Amino acid sequence: MNKKEYLDAKESALKSLEDAYSKQKVDKEISQILESINKIEGFYTSSSCAGRIVLLEIPQIGDKRGATFLGIWHRTIESKELTAAATKATVGLLWLLAQAPILHVGALTLELADKMVKTAISCGFKNSAVKSTGKRIVIEICSTERLDAPIGRDGTLFCKEEYLSLLVEISNEVIERSRKKIGRFVKKLGKFDDFL
Amino acid sequence: MNKKEYLDAKESALKSLEDAYSKQKVDKEISQILESINKIEGFYTSSSCAGRIVLLEIPQIGDKRGATFLGIWHRTIESKELTAAATKATVGLLWLLAQAPILHVGALTLELADKMVKTAISCGFKNSAVKSTGKRIVIEICSTERLDAPIGRDGTLFCKEEYLSLLVEISNEVIERSRKKIGRFVKKLGKFDDFL
Repeated sequence: MNKKEYLDAKESALKSLEDAYSKQKVDKEISQILESINKIEGFYTSSSCAGRIVLLEIPQIGDKRGATFLGIWHRTIESKELTAAATKATVGLLWLLAQAPILHVGALTLELADKMVKTAISCGFKNSAVKSTGKRIVIEICSTERLDAPIGRDGTLFCKEEYLSLLVEISNEVIERSRKKIGRFVKKLGKFDDFL
Repeated sequence: MNKKEYLDAKESALKSLEDAYSKQKVDKEISQILESINKIEGFYTSSSCAGRIVLLEIPQIGDKRGATFLGIWHRTIESKELTAAATKATVGLLWLLAQAPILHVGALTLELADKMVKTAISCGFKNSAVKSTGKRIVIEICSTERLDAPIGRDGTLFCKEEYLSLLVEISNEVIERSRKKIGRFVKKLGKFDDFL
Protein backbone atom coordinates (compact mmCIF):
# COMPACT_ATOMS: atom_id res chain seq x y z
CA MET A 1 0.00 0.00 0.00
CA ASN A 2 1.48 3.35 -0.95
CA LYS A 3 1.16 6.51 1.11
CA LYS A 4 -1.55 7.99 -1.15
CA GLU A 5 -3.75 4.87 -0.79
CA TYR A 6 -3.14 4.86 2.96
CA LEU A 7 -4.13 8.53 3.28
CA ASP A 8 -7.31 7.94 1.24
CA ALA A 9 -8.20 4.96 3.44
CA LYS A 10 -7.56 7.02 6.60
CA GLU A 11 -9.66 9.92 5.32
CA SER A 12 -12.53 7.61 4.49
CA ALA A 13 -12.27 5.81 7.86
CA LEU A 14 -12.30 9.10 9.77
CA LYS A 15 -15.36 10.21 7.82
CA SER A 16 -17.18 6.97 8.70
CA LEU A 17 -16.18 7.45 12.33
CA GLU A 18 -17.61 10.98 12.28
CA ASP A 19 -20.87 9.61 10.86
CA ALA A 20 -20.95 6.95 13.56
CA TYR A 21 -20.42 9.61 16.23
CA SER A 22 -23.26 11.72 14.86
CA LYS A 23 -25.54 8.64 15.00
CA GLN A 24 -24.27 7.84 18.54
CA LYS A 25 -23.04 4.49 17.32
CA VAL A 26 -19.60 4.72 18.96
CA ASP A 27 -19.18 3.13 22.41
CA LYS A 28 -18.10 6.09 24.51
CA GLU A 29 -15.82 3.92 26.65
CA ILE A 30 -13.57 3.29 23.67
CA SER A 31 -13.65 6.73 22.02
CA GLN A 32 -10.50 7.83 23.84
CA ILE A 33 -8.57 4.95 22.27
CA LEU A 34 -9.96 5.81 18.83
CA GLU A 35 -8.89 9.44 19.21
CA SER A 36 -5.43 8.50 20.48
CA ILE A 37 -4.81 6.07 17.61
CA ASN A 38 -6.13 8.37 14.89
CA LYS A 39 -3.85 11.13 16.19
CA ILE A 40 -0.74 9.02 15.55
CA GLU A 41 0.70 9.29 12.05
CA GLY A 42 0.52 5.96 10.25
CA PHE A 43 -2.67 4.59 11.84
CA TYR A 44 -6.43 4.84 11.59
CA THR A 45 -9.24 2.94 13.31
CA SER A 46 -11.80 1.17 11.16
CA SER A 47 -14.18 -0.55 13.57
CA SER A 48 -14.46 -1.04 17.30
CA CYS A 49 -16.46 -2.40 20.21
CA ALA A 50 -15.72 -1.44 23.83
CA GLY A 51 -16.63 -4.91 25.12
CA ARG A 52 -20.14 -6.12 25.80
CA ILE A 53 -22.49 -8.60 27.38
CA VAL A 54 -24.80 -10.32 24.89
CA LEU A 55 -27.81 -12.60 25.12
CA LEU A 56 -27.96 -14.54 21.88
CA GLU A 57 -30.44 -17.05 20.47
CA ILE A 58 -28.81 -19.32 17.95
CA PRO A 59 -30.23 -22.32 16.00
CA GLN A 60 -26.95 -24.28 16.28
CA ILE A 61 -23.38 -23.73 17.42
CA GLY A 62 -21.38 -21.55 15.04
CA ASP A 63 -24.46 -20.50 13.02
CA LYS A 64 -23.96 -16.76 13.33
CA ARG A 65 -26.26 -15.94 10.43
CA GLY A 66 -29.25 -17.50 12.13
CA ALA A 67 -28.53 -15.77 15.44
CA THR A 68 -30.87 -13.26 17.09
CA PHE A 69 -29.61 -10.72 19.62
CA LEU A 70 -32.07 -10.62 22.52
CA GLY A 71 -29.94 -8.25 24.58
CA ILE A 72 -26.74 -6.22 24.09
CA TRP A 73 -25.20 -4.24 26.94
CA HIS A 74 -21.97 -2.24 26.70
CA ARG A 75 -21.80 -2.07 30.50
CA THR A 76 -22.18 -4.20 33.61
CA ILE A 77 -25.69 -5.58 34.10
CA GLU A 78 -28.03 -6.99 36.74
CA SER A 79 -29.50 -10.50 36.62
CA LYS A 80 -33.04 -9.18 36.24
CA GLU A 81 -32.08 -7.43 32.98
CA LEU A 82 -30.89 -10.77 31.65
CA THR A 83 -34.02 -12.69 32.67
CA ALA A 84 -36.20 -9.90 31.23
CA ALA A 85 -34.38 -10.12 27.88
CA ALA A 86 -34.65 -13.92 27.95
CA THR A 87 -38.46 -13.74 27.92
CA LYS A 88 -38.16 -12.84 24.21
CA ALA A 89 -36.57 -16.23 23.45
CA THR A 90 -38.39 -18.59 21.09
CA VAL A 91 -36.46 -21.41 19.38
CA GLY A 92 -32.83 -22.50 19.63
CA LEU A 93 -30.04 -22.37 22.18
CA LEU A 94 -29.70 -19.29 24.38
CA TRP A 95 -26.10 -18.18 24.96
CA LEU A 96 -24.80 -15.63 27.39
CA LEU A 97 -21.59 -14.06 26.06
CA ALA A 98 -19.24 -11.61 27.70
CA GLN A 99 -16.85 -10.18 25.15
CA ALA A 100 -13.68 -8.14 25.59
CA PRO A 101 -13.09 -4.99 23.50
CA ILE A 102 -12.19 -5.46 19.85
CA LEU A 103 -10.61 -2.89 17.55
CA HIS A 104 -9.52 -2.92 13.93
CA VAL A 105 -6.72 -0.55 13.01
CA GLY A 106 -5.21 0.22 9.62
CA ALA A 107 -1.46 0.86 9.48
CA LEU A 108 0.83 2.49 6.93
CA THR A 109 3.74 0.05 7.33
CA LEU A 110 4.30 -3.43 8.73
CA GLU A 111 6.87 -2.03 11.12
CA LEU A 112 4.28 0.31 12.62
CA ALA A 113 1.70 -2.50 12.71
CA ASP A 114 4.11 -4.75 14.61
CA LYS A 115 4.83 -1.96 17.09
CA MET A 116 1.11 -1.36 17.68
CA VAL A 117 0.46 -5.07 18.23
CA LYS A 118 3.27 -5.22 20.79
CA THR A 119 1.96 -2.12 22.57
CA ALA A 120 -1.55 -3.60 22.74
CA ILE A 121 -0.25 -6.94 24.04
CA SER A 122 1.77 -5.16 26.75
CA CYS A 123 -1.47 -3.50 27.97
CA GLY A 124 -3.22 -6.86 28.32
CA PHE A 125 -4.76 -7.21 24.84
CA LYS A 126 -3.07 -10.58 24.38
CA ASN A 127 -5.14 -11.62 21.40
CA SER A 128 -3.80 -8.87 19.14
CA ALA A 129 -2.35 -9.64 15.71
CA VAL A 130 -1.87 -8.41 12.17
CA LYS A 131 -4.97 -9.75 10.40
CA SER A 132 -4.08 -8.73 6.87
CA THR A 133 -0.79 -7.86 5.20
CA GLY A 134 -2.09 -7.58 1.65
CA LYS A 135 -3.24 -4.39 -0.05
CA ARG A 136 -4.23 -2.98 3.34
CA ILE A 137 -2.40 -3.68 6.58
CA VAL A 138 -5.00 -4.35 9.26
CA ILE A 139 -4.41 -5.06 12.95
CA GLU A 140 -6.94 -6.66 15.28
CA ILE A 141 -6.64 -5.70 18.94
CA CYS A 142 -8.44 -7.93 21.42
CA SER A 143 -7.96 -9.54 24.82
CA THR A 144 -8.66 -13.03 26.08
CA GLU A 145 -11.24 -12.69 28.88
CA ARG A 146 -14.60 -14.06 27.85
CA LEU A 147 -17.56 -16.10 28.83
CA ASP A 148 -19.54 -18.20 26.33
CA ALA A 149 -22.16 -20.19 28.21
CA PRO A 150 -25.35 -21.79 26.94
CA ILE A 151 -28.08 -20.94 29.49
CA GLY A 152 -31.31 -22.14 27.94
CA ARG A 153 -33.12 -23.79 25.03
CA ASP A 154 -36.36 -23.14 23.16
CA GLY A 155 -37.46 -20.29 25.37
CA THR A 156 -36.63 -21.89 28.73
CA LEU A 157 -33.68 -21.07 30.99
CA PHE A 158 -31.79 -24.12 32.30
CA CYS A 159 -30.12 -22.43 35.23
CA LYS A 160 -31.16 -21.74 38.76
CA GLU A 161 -31.15 -18.13 39.94
CA GLU A 162 -27.90 -18.47 41.90
CA TYR A 163 -26.11 -19.84 38.89
CA LEU A 164 -27.41 -17.06 36.66
CA SER A 165 -26.23 -14.50 39.24
CA LEU A 166 -22.78 -16.03 39.14
CA LEU A 167 -22.68 -15.90 35.34
CA VAL A 168 -23.72 -12.25 35.48
CA GLU A 169 -21.05 -11.55 38.12
CA ILE A 170 -18.35 -13.08 35.92
CA SER A 171 -19.65 -11.28 32.82
CA ASN A 172 -19.46 -8.00 34.72
CA GLU A 173 -15.89 -8.82 35.68
CA VAL A 174 -15.01 -9.22 31.97
CA ILE A 175 -16.41 -5.71 31.37
CA GLU A 176 -14.61 -4.21 34.37
CA ARG A 177 -11.26 -5.75 33.48
CA SER A 178 -11.74 -4.50 29.91
CA ARG A 179 -12.23 -0.94 31.17
CA LYS A 180 -8.94 -1.13 33.08
CA LYS A 181 -7.08 -2.39 30.03
CA ILE A 182 -8.58 0.39 27.91
CA GLY A 183 -7.27 2.90 30.49
CA ARG A 184 -3.76 1.43 30.37
CA PHE A 185 -3.79 1.40 26.56
CA VAL A 186 -4.90 5.05 26.27
CA LYS A 187 -2.05 6.05 28.61
CA LYS A 188 0.52 4.12 26.58
CA LEU A 189 -0.79 5.41 23.24
CA GLY A 190 -0.07 8.93 24.48
CA LYS A 191 3.63 8.01 24.50
CA PHE A 192 3.56 5.87 21.33
CA ASP A 193 5.79 8.21 19.30
CA ASP A 194 8.51 8.07 21.98
CA PHE A 195 9.06 4.39 21.25
CA LEU A 196 9.50 4.77 17.50
CA MET B 1 14.19 -13.19 7.82
CA ASN B 2 16.54 -14.50 5.16
CA LYS B 3 16.29 -17.97 3.62
CA LYS B 4 19.17 -19.36 5.72
CA GLU B 5 17.50 -18.27 8.99
CA TYR B 6 14.20 -19.69 7.79
CA LEU B 7 15.76 -23.04 6.90
CA ASP B 8 17.48 -23.23 10.30
CA ALA B 9 14.18 -22.45 12.03
CA LYS B 10 12.36 -25.11 9.96
CA GLU B 11 15.04 -27.70 10.71
CA SER B 12 14.84 -27.01 14.42
CA ALA B 13 11.01 -27.08 14.38
CA LEU B 14 10.95 -30.43 12.56
CA LYS B 15 13.40 -31.85 15.08
CA SER B 16 11.19 -30.73 17.96
CA LEU B 17 8.19 -32.25 16.21
CA GLU B 18 10.04 -35.56 15.84
CA ASP B 19 10.84 -35.47 19.57
CA ALA B 20 7.20 -34.74 20.35
CA TYR B 21 6.13 -37.70 18.17
CA SER B 22 8.54 -40.04 19.95
CA LYS B 23 7.09 -38.91 23.30
CA GLN B 24 3.54 -39.32 21.93
CA LYS B 25 2.88 -35.64 22.61
CA VAL B 26 1.33 -34.88 19.21
CA ASP B 27 -2.47 -35.05 18.93
CA LYS B 28 -2.96 -37.69 16.27
CA GLU B 29 -6.04 -35.91 14.88
CA ILE B 30 -3.91 -33.02 13.76
CA SER B 31 -0.80 -34.86 12.58
CA GLN B 32 -2.07 -34.97 8.99
CA ILE B 33 -2.22 -31.17 8.90
CA LEU B 34 1.29 -30.93 10.36
CA GLU B 35 2.64 -33.28 7.69
CA SER B 36 0.82 -31.47 4.88
CA ILE B 37 2.11 -28.05 5.98
CA ASN B 38 5.69 -29.17 6.58
CA LYS B 39 5.73 -30.72 3.10
CA ILE B 40 5.04 -27.34 1.47
CA GLU B 41 8.12 -25.25 0.73
CA GLY B 42 8.10 -22.04 2.74
CA PHE B 43 6.28 -23.29 5.85
CA TYR B 44 6.88 -25.20 9.05
CA THR B 45 4.66 -25.92 12.05
CA SER B 46 5.87 -24.88 15.48
CA SER B 47 3.09 -25.85 17.88
CA SER B 48 -0.38 -27.31 17.67
CA CYS B 49 -3.43 -28.60 19.51
CA ALA B 50 -6.18 -30.59 17.78
CA GLY B 51 -8.90 -29.04 19.92
CA ARG B 52 -9.83 -30.16 23.41
CA ILE B 53 -12.23 -30.17 26.30
CA VAL B 54 -10.73 -28.88 29.53
CA LEU B 55 -11.82 -28.74 33.16
CA LEU B 56 -9.91 -25.89 34.77
CA GLU B 57 -9.73 -24.59 38.31
CA ILE B 58 -8.74 -20.95 38.39
CA PRO B 59 -8.39 -18.52 41.34
CA GLN B 60 -9.80 -15.58 39.35
CA ILE B 61 -10.80 -14.77 35.78
CA GLY B 62 -7.82 -14.32 33.47
CA ASP B 63 -5.33 -15.70 36.04
CA LYS B 64 -3.82 -18.40 33.86
CA ARG B 65 -0.73 -18.82 36.00
CA GLY B 66 -2.74 -19.86 39.02
CA ALA B 67 -4.86 -22.31 37.00
CA THR B 68 -4.90 -26.07 37.58
CA PHE B 69 -5.97 -28.52 34.86
CA LEU B 70 -8.27 -31.12 36.44
CA GLY B 71 -9.08 -32.77 33.12
CA ILE B 72 -7.90 -32.53 29.50
CA TRP B 73 -9.55 -34.55 26.73
CA HIS B 74 -8.59 -34.36 23.06
CA ARG B 75 -11.84 -36.14 22.14
CA THR B 76 -15.55 -36.14 22.89
CA ILE B 77 -16.41 -37.05 26.49
CA GLU B 78 -19.22 -38.34 28.70
CA SER B 79 -20.70 -36.37 31.60
CA LYS B 80 -19.47 -38.90 34.15
CA GLU B 81 -15.87 -38.26 33.11
CA LEU B 82 -16.40 -34.59 33.84
CA THR B 83 -17.97 -35.14 37.24
CA ALA B 84 -15.21 -37.62 38.15
CA ALA B 85 -12.54 -35.05 37.25
CA ALA B 86 -14.42 -32.37 39.21
CA THR B 87 -14.02 -34.34 42.45
CA LYS B 88 -10.36 -33.18 42.44
CA ALA B 89 -11.47 -29.54 42.75
CA THR B 90 -10.41 -27.58 45.84
CA VAL B 91 -10.44 -23.75 45.77
CA GLY B 92 -11.45 -21.28 43.05
CA LEU B 93 -13.81 -21.18 40.09
CA LEU B 94 -14.27 -24.32 38.00
CA TRP B 95 -14.50 -23.66 34.26
CA LEU B 96 -15.49 -26.05 31.50
CA LEU B 97 -13.79 -25.06 28.25
CA ALA B 98 -14.21 -26.49 24.78
CA GLN B 99 -11.47 -25.24 22.52
CA ALA B 100 -11.09 -25.41 18.75
CA PRO B 101 -7.79 -26.52 17.16
CA ILE B 102 -4.90 -24.08 17.27
CA LEU B 103 -1.77 -24.17 15.13
CA HIS B 104 1.31 -21.97 14.87
CA VAL B 105 3.04 -21.95 11.52
CA GLY B 106 6.29 -20.25 10.48
CA ALA B 107 6.45 -18.83 6.94
CA LEU B 108 9.30 -17.78 4.67
CA THR B 109 7.57 -14.72 3.19
CA LEU B 110 4.62 -12.48 4.04
CA GLU B 111 3.03 -13.36 0.72
CA LEU B 112 3.04 -17.05 1.62
CA ALA B 113 1.78 -16.25 5.14
CA ASP B 114 -1.13 -14.26 3.72
CA LYS B 115 -2.00 -17.11 1.37
CA MET B 116 -1.96 -19.66 4.21
CA VAL B 117 -4.18 -17.44 6.39
CA LYS B 118 -6.70 -17.11 3.53
CA THR B 119 -6.66 -20.89 2.94
CA ALA B 120 -7.27 -21.57 6.64
CA ILE B 121 -10.11 -19.04 6.80
CA SER B 122 -11.75 -20.62 3.73
CA CYS B 123 -11.77 -23.99 5.58
CA GLY B 124 -13.59 -22.50 8.57
CA PHE B 125 -10.62 -21.42 10.70
CA LYS B 126 -11.96 -17.87 10.85
CA ASN B 127 -9.72 -16.73 13.69
CA SER B 128 -6.51 -17.10 11.66
CA ALA B 129 -4.00 -14.27 11.39
CA VAL B 130 -0.36 -13.35 11.06
CA LYS B 131 0.76 -13.06 14.68
CA SER B 132 4.27 -11.76 14.09
CA THR B 133 5.91 -10.06 11.13
CA GLY B 134 9.23 -9.27 12.80
CA LYS B 135 12.34 -11.44 12.66
CA ARG B 136 10.15 -14.52 12.24
CA ILE B 137 6.86 -14.59 10.38
CA VAL B 138 4.39 -16.57 12.46
CA ILE B 139 0.78 -17.43 11.59
CA GLU B 140 -1.86 -18.54 14.09
CA ILE B 141 -4.61 -20.77 12.72
CA CYS B 142 -7.73 -21.10 14.86
CA SER B 143 -11.51 -21.23 14.54
CA THR B 144 -14.25 -19.53 16.52
CA GLU B 145 -16.35 -22.31 18.09
CA ARG B 146 -15.87 -22.46 21.82
CA LEU B 147 -17.50 -22.83 25.16
CA ASP B 148 -16.18 -21.09 28.29
CA ALA B 149 -18.57 -21.73 31.12
CA PRO B 150 -18.02 -21.52 34.88
CA ILE B 151 -19.63 -24.63 36.40
CA GLY B 152 -18.63 -24.59 40.06
CA ARG B 153 -16.76 -22.94 42.91
CA ASP B 154 -14.56 -24.14 45.78
CA GLY B 155 -15.04 -27.80 45.02
CA THR B 156 -18.81 -27.74 44.43
CA LEU B 157 -20.59 -27.94 41.07
CA PHE B 158 -23.35 -25.35 40.59
CA CYS B 159 -25.20 -27.13 37.85
CA LYS B 160 -27.87 -29.75 37.79
CA GLU B 161 -27.15 -32.96 35.93
CA GLU B 162 -29.27 -32.04 32.89
CA TYR B 163 -27.44 -28.78 32.50
CA LEU B 164 -24.05 -30.48 32.77
CA SER B 165 -25.15 -32.98 30.10
CA LEU B 166 -26.05 -30.13 27.81
CA LEU B 167 -22.69 -28.45 28.35
CA VAL B 168 -20.97 -31.74 27.56
CA GLU B 169 -23.13 -32.18 24.44
CA ILE B 170 -22.15 -28.71 23.18
CA SER B 171 -18.47 -29.27 24.05
CA ASN B 172 -18.56 -32.50 22.06
CA GLU B 173 -20.04 -30.57 19.15
CA VAL B 174 -17.07 -28.17 19.23
CA ILE B 175 -14.74 -31.18 18.96
CA GLU B 176 -16.74 -32.80 16.16
CA ARG B 177 -16.97 -29.62 14.11
CA SER B 178 -13.22 -29.15 14.60
CA ARG B 179 -12.56 -32.61 13.17
CA LYS B 180 -14.56 -31.74 10.07
CA LYS B 181 -12.65 -28.50 9.58
CA ILE B 182 -9.35 -30.33 9.98
CA GLY B 183 -10.46 -32.73 7.24
CA ARG B 184 -11.33 -29.86 4.87
CA PHE B 185 -8.02 -28.14 5.60
CA VAL B 186 -5.94 -31.28 4.94
CA LYS B 187 -7.69 -31.67 1.59
CA LYS B 188 -7.04 -28.07 0.60
CA LEU B 189 -3.41 -28.16 1.75
CA GLY B 190 -2.83 -30.99 -0.71
CA LYS B 191 -3.58 -28.52 -3.50
CA PHE B 192 -1.83 -25.53 -1.89
CA ASP B 193 0.91 -25.26 -4.51
CA ASP B 194 -1.69 -25.06 -7.29
CA PHE B 195 -2.85 -21.69 -5.98
CA LEU B 196 0.59 -20.05 -5.83
